Amino acid sequence: MKRNVPLIGVTMGDPAGIGPEIILKSFKNTIRQQNYNILVIGNMDVMKKVKDIIGIEDIILNEVHDTDECDFSDNILNVLNIDNIKIDELLPGEIQKMAGNAAYEYVERAVKLTLDDEIDAISTAPLNKEAMHLAGHNYPGHTEILARLSNGKDYAMFLYDESLKVIHVSTHVSLLEAIQGLSKDRIESVIKLADSTMKRLGYEDPKIAVAGINPHAGEGGLFGDEEISTINPAIEECKSLGINVQGSISPDTVFVRAKDKEFDIVVVMYHDQGHIPLKLLGFHSGVNVTVGLPIIRTSVDHGTAFNVAWKGLADESSMTQSIQLAARLIGK
Amino acid sequence: MKRNVPLIGVTMGDPAGIGPEIILKSFKNTIRQQNYNILVIGNMDVMKKVKDIIGIEDIILNEVHDTDECDFSDNILNVLNIDNIKIDELLPGEIQKMAGNAAYEYVERAVKLTLDDEIDAISTAPLNKEAMHLAGHNYPGHTEILARLSNGKDYAMFLYDESLKVIHVSTHVSLLEAIQGLSKDRIESVIKLADSTMKRLGYEDPKIAVAGINPHAGEGGLFGDEEISTINPAIEECKSLGINVQGSISPDTVFVRAKDKEFDIVVVMYHDQGHIPLKLLGFHSGVNVTVGLPIIRTSVDHGTAFNVAWKGLADESSMTQSIQLAARLIGK
Repeated sequence: MKRNVPLIGVTMGDPAGIGPEIILKSFKNTIRQQNYNILVIGNMDVMKKVKDIIGIEDIILNEVHDTDECDFSDNILNVLNIDNIKIDELLPGEIQKMAGNAAYEYVERAVKLTLDDEIDAISTAPLNKEAMHLAGHNYPGHTEILARLSNGKDYAMFLYDESLKVIHVSTHVSLLEAIQGLSKDRIESVIKLADSTMKRLGYEDPKIAVAGINPHAGEGGLFGDEEISTINPAIEECKSLGINVQGSISPDTVFVRAKDKEFDIVVVMYHDQGHIPLKLLGFHSGVNVTVGLPIIRTSVDHGTAFNVAWKGLADESSMTQSIQLAARLIGK
Repeated sequence: MKRNVPLIGVTMGDPAGIGPEIILKSFKNTIRQQNYNILVIGNMDVMKKVKDIIGIEDIILNEVHDTDECDFSDNILNVLNIDNIKIDELLPGEIQKMAGNAAYEYVERAVKLTLDDEIDAISTAPLNKEAMHLAGHNYPGHTEILARLSNGKDYAMFLYDESLKVIHVSTHVSLLEAIQGLSKDRIESVIKLADSTMKRLGYEDPKIAVAGINPHAGEGGLFGDEEISTINPAIEECKSLGINVQGSISPDTVFVRAKDKEFDIVVVMYHDQGHIPLKLLGFHSGVNVTVGLPIIRTSVDHGTAFNVAWKGLADESSMTQSIQLAARLIGK
């Protein structure tokens, strides 16, 4: 297959959620500004039905079963059809085993296509964890599926918004485990991922801040010693390798300083340390990137929003940002 | 002493910091909108010197040694002078034992005046912890001094900004201690303080949200069980008492929902869970309130800013908000 721009596989997510809608809207809004192509990995019946319900006229859906069959003319949205939905049985906005299984299979196919070099990156619409668990796929989320299917080990969750970028040392574990699991090696590895990812995004010498884990970054050991024992040594090690990194910095001021452009990215120690500021600043436009895997993967930073599914009310900003960021990460 | 409006004691904070300046600026900017009077508890020589340096002409400083001596005419700022600074030896922007001791003594006097019913509330300018420790007063901060001097037991740190209000179950302890120290009793007590303080501020039936401590509020026990074992039972208990409280709610979305007015206040489990969002939203205007003490006390939500001390560059917004909030908390 020949092409001059990258091809991004966009998984449709849970068919009963807002995935199909935000993909359609995002495609429509970016038709004339693409320096990439997209291929939806999902179900044709669902895409058609949602397109009809929300009334998007000027897009033609093209069913394909292989990337070679894609037609990248303007207004044509290619859908790699996986026949795993009985459309008459699917209920919008409901947790359903059939839908959970389908969402899993779109991701599974996307990974295969990436590893086979058929697509260059994956951008994922939201899946519903409960539906997926009903179908027997017991993963906490996309990231863990991708890591498993691509044999990834040392990966991290990077949240991207124009106003703030954060990368996580830990994510889906209890806060207690996040503290007890801190290690110099892991922190070093995440600082390096911060550096390499930001360089990939065009920052020549990214300014990296590392947040402490305790109030006031421990205040010299008065409020906890993880900074002294673990975090600061990792920072010093990375400095000695020439990385432009500072810290540990008080968690309650580091994000204000990053927002004011003193830092390009903040390395955070636990899920909410990164998610609280990012969601406050970029609730509709944040992108979730999994870095450190053999696969480039971006994702919307919100859920399936079952309450507004198939109603034409969903905000597609995060989907659009997510696809565009994938294109930037692929590079030339 | 007779008066028709509340009298708020404003402690000068560390003489080498921005306290004197922000008090002068705040007084000047609010002369014509007062429904309260203020009395500076500090040092006359420092106030005079800073007034001259930053060039505030239209305020007359009036030295008093007792609240009876106050003159509440327009443009007159009363200063209860404590003779604890050798003005020729004081260096702006430096950590000094003399200054640390002085700052402590202003707070000490303010507490005495409040307990003697001479003033109605205290609003504190920032002190420098290191300077205070040099002088042998080994407190983590204002709150602990006030609690000790007023025999307070069950108090909590409340951060107030127009856009967001949070109250803390724990503050100046390591994150590990914050987790290990969680108890149903303490959480209940802080929910009740949230309710009573908001009512005092004029909210008839305040909508209270309680944040979880783990990612996604534990996701049903998958990422930690503190919500199930401790936080949720405290919430249920408070609900049964008629308090309008909800939770536990995922920490990364609760602040967005509160900012969007779904909740009036968020109960947070640890220092940075409350400080990160508050500082992002209200960096220059946040007010720190200690609630649950026999004393009403508000404070600026920033430090001594030694780097800009005595230069006329400090932003007085938080000082002004702090004094005005004290007046609101006193009520009629």
